[in-house]
Amino acid sequence: MKVAGKHTRSIWVEPDGWSVGIIDQTMLPHRFATLRLTTLADAAHAIKSMQVRGAPLIGATAAYGVCLAMRQDASDDALERAYATLLATRPTAINLKWALDEMMAAVRNRPRGERLAAAYPRAAEICDEDVALNQAIGRHGRKLIEQIAAKKQPGERVNLLTHCNGGWLATVDFGTALAPIYMAHDAGLPVHVWVDETRPRNQGAALTAWELGQHGVPHTVIPDNTGGHLMQHAMVDLAIVGTDRVTARGDVCNKIGTYLKALAASDNNVPFYVALPSPTIDFTVGNGLAEIPIEQRSSEEVSLVWGKAANGE
Amino acid sequence: MKVAGKHTRSIWVEPDGWSVGIIDQTMLPHRFATLRLTTLADAAHAIKSMQVRGAPLIGATAAYGVCLAMRQDASDDALERAYATLLATRPTAINLKWALDEMMAAVRNRPRGERLAAAYPRAAEICDEDVALNQAIGRHGRKLIEQIAAKKQPGERVNLLTHCNGGWLATVDFGTALAPIYMAHDAGLPVHVWVDETRPRNQGAALTAWELGQHGVPHTVIPDNTGGHLMQHAMVDLAIVGTDRVTARGDVCNKIGTYLKALAASDNNVPFYVALPSPTIDFTVGNGLAEIPIEQRSSEEVSLVWGKAANGE
Repeated sequence: MKVAGKHTRSIWVEPDGWSVGIIDQTMLPHRFATLRLTTLADAAHAIKSMQVRGAPLIGATAAYGVCLAMRQDASDDALERAYATLLATRPTAINLKWALDEMMAAVRNRPRGERLAAAYPRAAEICDEDVALNQAIGRHGRKLIEQIAAKKQPGERVNLLTHCNGGWLATVDFGTALAPIYMAHDAGLPVHVWVDETRPRNQGAALTAWELGQHGVPHTVIPDNTGGHLMQHAMVDLAIVGTDRVTARGDVCNKIGTYLKALAASDNNVPFYVALPSPTIDFTVGNGLAEIPIEQRSSEEVSLVWGKAANGE
Repeated sequence: MKVAGKHTRSIWVEPDGWSVGIIDQTMLPHRFATLRLTTLADAAHAIKSMQVRGAPLIGATAAYGVCLAMRQDASDDALERAYATLLATRPTAINLKWALDEMMAAVRNRPRGERLAAAYPRAAEICDEDVALNQAIGRHGRKLIEQIAAKKQPGERVNLLTHCNGGWLATVDFGTALAPIYMAHDAGLPVHVWVDETRPRNQGAALTAWELGQHGVPHTVIPDNTGGHLMQHAMVDLAIVGTDRVTARGDVCNKIGTYLKALAASDNNVPFYVALPSPTIDFTVGNGLAEIPIEQRSSEEVSLVWGKAANGE
């Protein structure tokens, strides 16, 4: 999607043909800064420190992490080490494991000398597949928004609610939850998005609001407590979120607080959708509550707030 | 309850016998500062700017606001003006109107010269009645906690969850939601409180955590998104909150986000209690959603965060 009017993906191969560019998402919305990853350690750090985040983008970054590892050392040991190192960066998003398995399948049974040449094209494919999946989600989900708009007065806005960031920053492009919203907006539908602030880390306020703003989509940041009240007052037409992992029986795991919005949607008969690409489904687990490991991060993500001070610092 | 080991109420008459002392709650938890109110305007500003907040304490402050107004001018006009000025400070908490009506009843039918002498005792009674009501809530609610503790292993902690601040800072003393918790703690029960951060304004993190900490009650501040997850994992034994207003049919109005926790409690069979004194009941309204005005404050309460910087400022 667009950043300052220029089409941008969230991850790319640099003009040198091998190093990997990302947006340092920990600096958003206050600074748009890009980083150049050149080693396995760089890729692992980018995922762990949440310079990149979002289930699909974590998968894409891990795929390029394997490429960078193969560039340093294409041995079996190095491949196993890269797999283990990257898999350990974040526990919840299943796309990470999926992408690593895809990369292993692409390079493992080749002689060392051919591994690097096989790795980059597969990583690029993983990225392009993500974009294609998200475009399909967008086309599919746009219809839901059109159906709501059709029941309203001409020009009356369609109010959507989302939690955390399921936008293009969470994927390679277009996003999951936001793809239908971008497509509806681009088609001229009067959409407006209630953006959950999404404590801790404020990824809704910092990322979702930023990317919607860059693309020109009307939106309002709200505290996480607000969604239920808005639904009680018929101010939400549809809720849509992304997901870190979905189990074989359909249990959805997403950023903490998603459950509360789903309960409120159910209580108020507001349609609630989860937008996901197929690599987010984990067919090996059934009970999401019992079987999906939930990441616990530093308590400082609650007690400290990162932002811009009154003096602009 | 205790501040730095010393018993403190949230509002008091100063040693001069007429000016009114309060804690400037907008400075907590970083600074314990008190303020002296000497005029109607001071009292109205204290309520409006949330130096005092919480339904019962708003009522008590309004009562003393009428006293301060009568001191300046005991005419009928001044009395009507004081009533209107104080009533307009905050729209949601019904205790404000209740306390103003009580003060009117106490002074209106008296000659001007006797009004001031009648006002202060009635305001003091309103405060003492609040303390007595909250102690009764505490004795009553403590039994609920004892019943849960009785089903646990000896010493196993009882996990309570609360939203916003229904503690002694929201009342004259003891609190509503926290009164049973203080009494259970003082009786030696191993209570632990999950304290919702409570965006915007973070009144859980800033006030509830502070007062529990001053009194020595174990607690953990959590983002507002967390409660549902904790309930899904059987980590909450009982949820208890205060309220701004309860309607004749029992609809409960409280800080935004309370509804989401009530839904999660219902979905997970966690008992959910609302602790309130009788002046919080508004028998003139039935449908809380339609009939209770909800205060909307400045958007800066979402976009700006007040706190201590890394340099200690």
